[in-house]
Amino acid sequence: MAVYTDVSAEDLEKFLAAYGIGEALVFKGIAEGVENSNYFLRTRQGAFILTLYEKRVCEDDLPFFLGLMEHLAKRGLPCSTPVRGKDGEIYRALKHRPAAILTFLDGVSFAHPTPAHCRLAGRALAKLHRAGADFGLRRKNVLGLEGWKKLAAQCAPDADTVMSGMSALIALEVDFLAKTWPRALPQGVIHADLFPDNVLFAENRVSGLIDFYFACNDALAYDLAVMLNAWCFDEGGAFAAEESRALIAGYQELRPLEAPERAALPVLGRGAALRFLLTRLYDWLHHDSHALVRPKDPRAFAQRLRFHRNVHGPEIYGL
Amino acid sequence: MAVYTDVSAEDLEKFLAAYGIGEALVFKGIAEGVENSNYFLRTRQGAFILTLYEKRVCEDDLPFFLGLMEHLAKRGLPCSTPVRGKDGEIYRALKHRPAAILTFLDGVSFAHPTPAHCRLAGRALAKLHRAGADFGLRRKNVLGLEGWKKLAAQCAPDADTVMSGMSALIALEVDFLAKTWPRALPQGVIHADLFPDNVLFAENRVSGLIDFYFACNDALAYDLAVMLNAWCFDEGGAFAAEESRALIAGYQELRPLEAPERAALPVLGRGAALRFLLTRLYDWLHHDSHALVRPKDPRAFAQRLRFHRNVHGPEIYGL
Repeated sequence: MAVYTDVSAEDLEKFLAAYGIGEALVFKGIAEGVENSNYFLRTRQGAFILTLYEKRVCEDDLPFFLGLMEHLAKRGLPCSTPVRGKDGEIYRALKHRPAAILTFLDGVSFAHPTPAHCRLAGRALAKLHRAGADFGLRRKNVLGLEGWKKLAAQCAPDADTVMSGMSALIALEVDFLAKTWPRALPQGVIHADLFPDNVLFAENRVSGLIDFYFACNDALAYDLAVMLNAWCFDEGGAFAAEESRALIAGYQELRPLEAPERAALPVLGRGAALRFLLTRLYDWLHHDSHALVRPKDPRAFAQRLRFHRNVHGPEIYGL
Repeated sequence: MAVYTDVSAEDLEKFLAAYGIGEALVFKGIAEGVENSNYFLRTRQGAFILTLYEKRVCEDDLPFFLGLMEHLAKRGLPCSTPVRGKDGEIYRALKHRPAAILTFLDGVSFAHPTPAHCRLAGRALAKLHRAGADFGLRRKNVLGLEGWKKLAAQCAPDADTVMSGMSALIALEVDFLAKTWPRALPQGVIHADLFPDNVLFAENRVSGLIDFYFACNDALAYDLAVMLNAWCFDEGGAFAAEESRALIAGYQELRPLEAPERAALPVLGRGAALRFLLTRLYDWLHHDSHALVRPKDPRAFAQRLRFHRNVHGPEIYGL
């Protein structure tokens, strides 16, 4: 976690002239975000995050990501909302990168969420799905089945250097999911990356959902399957049944799952595990040893994938 | 700039139980500080910095550093003050490192300070020197003449790989300073590292002096010579006469230099340039290519050293 692009107080002063939020009282780089450079900014008008989008976020996607945050915030979801410039623009160039100012959210994330956290987070996901229903823009999930096939092909030659049998595990799984992936489930805007570090809590409520830079249109229940993988396994990789039950119960408080969504959960869980297995494996194999960020271990998601392969039905998740 | 030690919300919760400042509403790693890990922390009681001292700060020095900040803050200097635990302790262990909570200061630092910034910063240095006069603890300047000799010996074999003639320049200078270093100048607590990034400005005043982890007892005018090197050369390395005149004028508003201090400025300027030349050279030569911090180029201070060698008297600095 690091700041990739240095922004001086002088750079900032010029940039802020395009906004109506006053001068910087505080401006500090934040060690957060694997993809972008983030600064904490405070003016007399409030607290903000200044984000510079580095190479991994495509500028063409920014109207979707930033527009979605603005849309969700207007509907009462606790997410940052972009501050538009005096000219109405939602982002503009800074140090030759697209950059945006977002409102700052209080709260801390928990590395080891309790069932109570899971319930609140599940409920927040359902709220997001409801609030996103009338968002006008669309974005394809580039990390869906087609994306997995591409990543699998790119990683295949070296996958076994990371873990014995990894290559075969991935090949079998891509094959299986290509045949069985459910295509008729309720669709909508999904976060697609709602890990515990992207949910902020303050005073026993969800105070913030952050990092919408994988958001896209896909099956709503797939988003829940991502959370099952991210929130409901302990440090040793064992399934945490109580957390899972709480997560799903929280979700269903606002959006009860339909029967086909329930039935599809094990397959969706496998897909979500494969998605993070593949992106982590890719980063692991293509890691620049001089980079500021250490890649995450992909093996944890191989373990989760095996768990979902062995379940006999959706009841295991606490349904 | 990076966070070296990860502190989870759970770690923090336990740590904060020893303090009376309430629970964390915001907790974010800050990409700041080459030596330590820093987190921004906000509770209902205010904004703070949580610092974990990594290997480069010696735990035995913490009572001096933290006690000094507390002392200076009580005397009205705009510097962070340590928050003592419920047990009165000024620091305690977190993740097997000494750690302290300090009050947070508003303000931004300028990479290219103007003469107006220099005047205010010079004045703030004099205020620091006056406020430090009755501080009870003492700390030797380990980066004084004896320290330079050690560093020079450690760097000598490889110095010329960085810049042709570097080794001879250093050897000659250490020799010269050993003979001429003024030892009878007014002494006191000095900051010893007051570069522009350690002075925060808000609304046209100095709102914060930070990073006291090189503070020690030494000649007060040496501290001003450090600032001359740090604030009064442009990006190309040329001396900035207007900035220098403003810096010294600001200093003398609160503490007029005595005649021997004025006369010693060129020698003090040489010593200060050598100090940063040597520590940067050492870091450059001993840099771990996997480290999160890029070392700073030592050659800029070779250029400054040559400047001070060629001046005919202290008038050049704007006295």
